[in-house]
Amino acid sequence: MLAVTILGNNSALPAFDRHPTAQVVTMEDQIFLVDCGEGTQMQMAKYKIRRSKINYIFISHLHGDHYFGLIGLLTSMGLLGRTQDLHLHAPAPLEEIIGMQLKVADIHLPYPLHFHALDGSNVIIRETRFEVSCFPVFHRIECWGFIFREVRPFRRVNPEKARQNEVPSSFFDRLKWGESYLRKDGVLVENQSVTEPANKARSYAYTADTLFDPRIADSVRGVDILYHETTYLKDLEVQAGKRFHSTTTQAATIAREAGVQRLLIGHFSSKYEKLHSFETEAREIFLNTELALEGVTYKV
Amino acid sequence: MLAVTILGNNSALPAFDRHPTAQVVTMEDQIFLVDCGEGTQMQMAKYKIRRSKINYIFISHLHGDHYFGLIGLLTSMGLLGRTQDLHLHAPAPLEEIIGMQLKVADIHLPYPLHFHALDGSNVIIRETRFEVSCFPVFHRIECWGFIFREVRPFRRVNPEKARQNEVPSSFFDRLKWGESYLRKDGVLVENQSVTEPANKARSYAYTADTLFDPRIADSVRGVDILYHETTYLKDLEVQAGKRFHSTTTQAATIAREAGVQRLLIGHFSSKYEKLHSFETEAREIFLNTELALEGVTYKV
Repeated sequence: MLAVTILGNNSALPAFDRHPTAQVVTMEDQIFLVDCGEGTQMQMAKYKIRRSKINYIFISHLHGDHYFGLIGLLTSMGLLGRTQDLHLHAPAPLEEIIGMQLKVADIHLPYPLHFHALDGSNVIIRETRFEVSCFPVFHRIECWGFIFREVRPFRRVNPEKARQNEVPSSFFDRLKWGESYLRKDGVLVENQSVTEPANKARSYAYTADTLFDPRIADSVRGVDILYHETTYLKDLEVQAGKRFHSTTTQAATIAREAGVQRLLIGHFSSKYEKLHSFETEAREIFLNTELALEGVTYKV
Repeated sequence: MLAVTILGNNSALPAFDRHPTAQVVTMEDQIFLVDCGEGTQMQMAKYKIRRSKINYIFISHLHGDHYFGLIGLLTSMGLLGRTQDLHLHAPAPLEEIIGMQLKVADIHLPYPLHFHALDGSNVIIRETRFEVSCFPVFHRIECWGFIFREVRPFRRVNPEKARQNEVPSSFFDRLKWGESYLRKDGVLVENQSVTEPANKARSYAYTADTLFDPRIADSVRGVDILYHETTYLKDLEVQAGKRFHSTTTQAATIAREAGVQRLLIGHFSSKYEKLHSFETEAREIFLNTELALEGVTYKV
């Protein structure tokens, strides 16, 4: 399972009961929190996201609508008695801000908070069953996108054929990763004779806040779902550029150029009460586009 | 008019759709914001409080449930194009936290933000028609209560009597403050002969988070409405003490000892879903007690 649930889809100024940016990505048995605007912990309660299941948090950049809810969430986790490790990947200055806020409140979190400064490296987490990488996007201040990828074996074992060929089940895990089996009698059981291609590993990319820039298409090439911001409709392209944001047309162009399966658009300016034009405009260029709506889960 | 509208009545952990502490006090043509927990700007939108009317903000202490919503409100005011001065009265370290958050976001507020560190002085604002004072309360970290008082003339002019006594209307303002008028013909018009006692100036006191301490009764003596925290019901007095909070019984005792007109109780622990026992217990000691409910305005 790889899915993203939207907790906030608005740009900086909360409006029309839309909230600042936050998403949770569910992959295998992990929940990743991606950005954490003010009120995210309340949105998590509303949409029944279990805070205790979060072990990784990613903050794209230090504009408030992407992180002002973080300190409240961290301290609430402490009040709830969390003890397990929490990993926070974010631009470097956030560590000092959090440290200062805890210090003036005389609060010592009862769990280990591991701060990892984003510094341009590509893969930032590599676990057995998933990996997370980051890539630069182009905003007024340092800003990062994230890609969440399942890590899966290339091959799926056909247990009947494997048994017929006398491959022990203890070797099945190695079969999944493409190895062939050398029997004690000297016969080589070719991997492809007892396995089939596995389903493709799934992936989700989040581009945070960014100018239109074709390099983003390179960064997110071939993902299953791309989230790209669309702060403005296409007629405000000049304004979007000045404010380091993107339009519907620009987001859809990135999706098309990157060859993704599906495009989610969000980070809508509070100047727009109705959102249907966002979908209409983006679909002119990339048909498989959907609005990122709060409380909705989009599955790969 | 002197009134308080509750925006958040819960303690640290948001729960049951109750929010962390924030209140707005309306006095004359001013709106004062008192504490600003996470989500306060959304609560203001919900309850139609106009952000642009706020010129003074007071933060009692630097536990997050009393100020994590402030930076979001300050930056939103900037995005909305505010230009008029804003005065922030708060414990000293908040200035550096705000400064750092603005700096990493590369944000320059388009309005003057005047930071006033609370340092033990009594009256912190004295204007023609109102004054605000602060007093220490007793919490785990430095914490302040606030009193909002109308400033009013002592006397109300009886215009008919004043004219009969040949007092010019240009002198009426001085009559209100108790002066007598010396006519050009040498006759002294005694103040009390042309005025009546004015209505009493109204007052509201907010005690923030505090241990039970009789000194608070001295600080808030005789106010019209007292807000006192009641994080716990009376059976948890020991726990309340350990956490530097108060119970229903303790809050009501302060109200009774201080001789206030009316008691508002709030800052309910998230362990309580239902609140009616708070009112019942407090009324055993101080009858004129009400729950501080979100979205409700309490008028003096």
